[in-house]
Amino acid sequence: MGSVILMQYVYLDNSATTKPCELSVKYTLDALENFWGNPSSLHMLGVLAEEKINEAKKCIADVLHCKEEEIVFTSGGTEANNTAIISAALKGKKRGNRIVTTEIEHPSVLETVKRLEEEGFEVVKLKPDKNGVIPAESIKNAITKDTILVSIMLVNNETGAIQPVETAAAAIKSVGAPALLHVDAVQAFGKMPINPSKLGVDLLTVSGHKIHASKGIGFLYIRKGVTIKPYITGGGQEKGMRSGTEPVPLIYGLLGAVKSLPNLENALKKQKELWNYAKQKLSDTGFVKINSSDECLPYIINISVPGYRSETLLHFLENEGIYVSSGSACAKGEGSYVLKSCGFDRKTIDSSLRISFSRDNTKEDIDALVSTLIKATERLQRSKI
Amino acid sequence: MGSVILMQYVYLDNSATTKPCELSVKYTLDALENFWGNPSSLHMLGVLAEEKINEAKKCIADVLHCKEEEIVFTSGGTEANNTAIISAALKGKKRGNRIVTTEIEHPSVLETVKRLEEEGFEVVKLKPDKNGVIPAESIKNAITKDTILVSIMLVNNETGAIQPVETAAAAIKSVGAPALLHVDAVQAFGKMPINPSKLGVDLLTVSGHKIHASKGIGFLYIRKGVTIKPYITGGGQEKGMRSGTEPVPLIYGLLGAVKSLPNLENALKKQKELWNYAKQKLSDTGFVKINSSDECLPYIINISVPGYRSETLLHFLENEGIYVSSGSACAKGEGSYVLKSCGFDRKTIDSSLRISFSRDNTKEDIDALVSTLIKATERLQRSKI
Repeated sequence: MGSVILMQYVYLDNSATTKPCELSVKYTLDALENFWGNPSSLHMLGVLAEEKINEAKKCIADVLHCKEEEIVFTSGGTEANNTAIISAALKGKKRGNRIVTTEIEHPSVLETVKRLEEEGFEVVKLKPDKNGVIPAESIKNAITKDTILVSIMLVNNETGAIQPVETAAAAIKSVGAPALLHVDAVQAFGKMPINPSKLGVDLLTVSGHKIHASKGIGFLYIRKGVTIKPYITGGGQEKGMRSGTEPVPLIYGLLGAVKSLPNLENALKKQKELWNYAKQKLSDTGFVKINSSDECLPYIINISVPGYRSETLLHFLENEGIYVSSGSACAKGEGSYVLKSCGFDRKTIDSSLRISFSRDNTKEDIDALVSTLIKATERLQRSKI
Repeated sequence: MGSVILMQYVYLDNSATTKPCELSVKYTLDALENFWGNPSSLHMLGVLAEEKINEAKKCIADVLHCKEEEIVFTSGGTEANNTAIISAALKGKKRGNRIVTTEIEHPSVLETVKRLEEEGFEVVKLKPDKNGVIPAESIKNAITKDTILVSIMLVNNETGAIQPVETAAAAIKSVGAPALLHVDAVQAFGKMPINPSKLGVDLLTVSGHKIHASKGIGFLYIRKGVTIKPYITGGGQEKGMRSGTEPVPLIYGLLGAVKSLPNLENALKKQKELWNYAKQKLSDTGFVKINSSDECLPYIINISVPGYRSETLLHFLENEGIYVSSGSACAKGEGSYVLKSCGFDRKTIDSSLRISFSRDNTKEDIDALVSTLIKATERLQRSKI
């Protein structure tokens, strides 16, 4: 067996990734050992594998209040975002040229719309207010009759700010734009109730490893009636929408994770209490600045410790067995463009930390974080900037 | 625990997928439980996960006689083929308009070049000879000065025919074409020694689940010095070549599978004996026609039982616990375009079966197959076509 981490630690970086839960690991193992057939095979081993995929889709569809056939598995959130954006643009290019998104999207959205911009699409990126929320008014103003795609995240991955997705849906409708509405729900799924059909969403991205499944699996919800071209072509799996042998062990593991989700309403209430506790304790230190707004999804609290560099703090906490993030894991080492876009000053940005929770975190974890931050400001005195 | 298959069976469909080997499962489990950090995270859990990726790349690079930085992980063979083809076309479009490939490629190549054809590229698809091999002469004739991509598989997935990849490399060189040479090596890697640099290959596709790793992981070899644009964009993982959080459990599991590969030369010799045994036994029945040539990679033997439909035979064998394939798993139920392209008649195609081996198969498996085929021709008398 490989080496094992014996050390005790407090993991507060759940927006970067989560620990696979017991049922997810168990299901993955079960599929690797017993349901390893190719789902496209016509014999029993194929059929057994295919059944696992259908079982997973059914369960996910229940959680999302949608139909099984609206779920297309991908290798993760990034591929789902690429697929949604490129395919929607391909579909829409005869009807318009404008894409509306925000400055605070995940890089898998921003880098992908950038490619479209280079190809000649007009890309409009909206700015959030100080609370990290895109103002309804600017969404309404941005969506025109030649807008073919609106891509807006449901919950921001650095601040936890919830975005007014319904406003975008309503604006598309009232303008009569041909736009598809794509929502990156990677930080939202499994943490708050989502009903894409009620929200008026056409395409919705989910990632498995943010909800205690393995990395390498996610899905794109594609509203029934919406036809887009596949991004990865080949053997025609997933009804032609995503080719490539389905990764049954990961899909089945995702089922394990989805089955393990708590009642979302109850969990959210409980989590809000933990968030409030964290905010209070962190504020009580007198030196921690809270960057997340009270209205954010309470699984993220973005803070700053002005005078101390994020990375220095991160590594001090790490040495004490507390894992947090400076910005998002995907923007390794660089200053946060999200906080910058929200209008925070350099000092706040350079000293920011993202604390992100899972259902496994406790008040004791917060206490450990707070006392270690206090220790950090005492010990790191001389590295003040 | 989920249900378990207790039945004994003979698995002869290894070109569709393979059973994950013990070490691969063990490593996947180890990563899920202990190395589940986000490799992009700056703290220790991220670093530990990143180390696993590097360990896997080092081992794969050793097997391929290449450099670690030449390996880019993908979600599988299909994504790797899509990436190679689309990215090479994007890169080449200023220098030429011609793409040369073959009629017998995997759908993930054929469907992807089709997209390029629709965009205006000229696509030339070469025909194999009766042995399933693309003639050297036709490759030489097809590659012109404005050819920007040649995509040719190393081993065909239905017949096992080995393709003259070196001829393509030499032709590109002698013509002075700007073409990149892409090789789909999904059915070859782990079964025969491959040295992409010696072969003159620029891009080479490998899939994990064909070599006893999990589904959902593969890689694209990109020769050092070859720059192509990424196909999936976002957080800039894999040095910007493939965004998306790396699926560490799958990558580490792939390492387990690659570590478990036997000495390829020795295994190939042993496998050739098994193939010869199979050919002899099958021929001895008097009613089995061998469609694969003696020069094929001996992990596949394509046969026909004229007068009996593939699917009928497949299900008869299945009921007796023997799993084979009619055509490739990816062309579910349809007549084989590969055999058709090789010039086989309808009767041969409609009664064809693909028998595909792994290192775990034995002479007893062949005996079981042959005796069950004999039984099939006795019992299925009336369903003759």
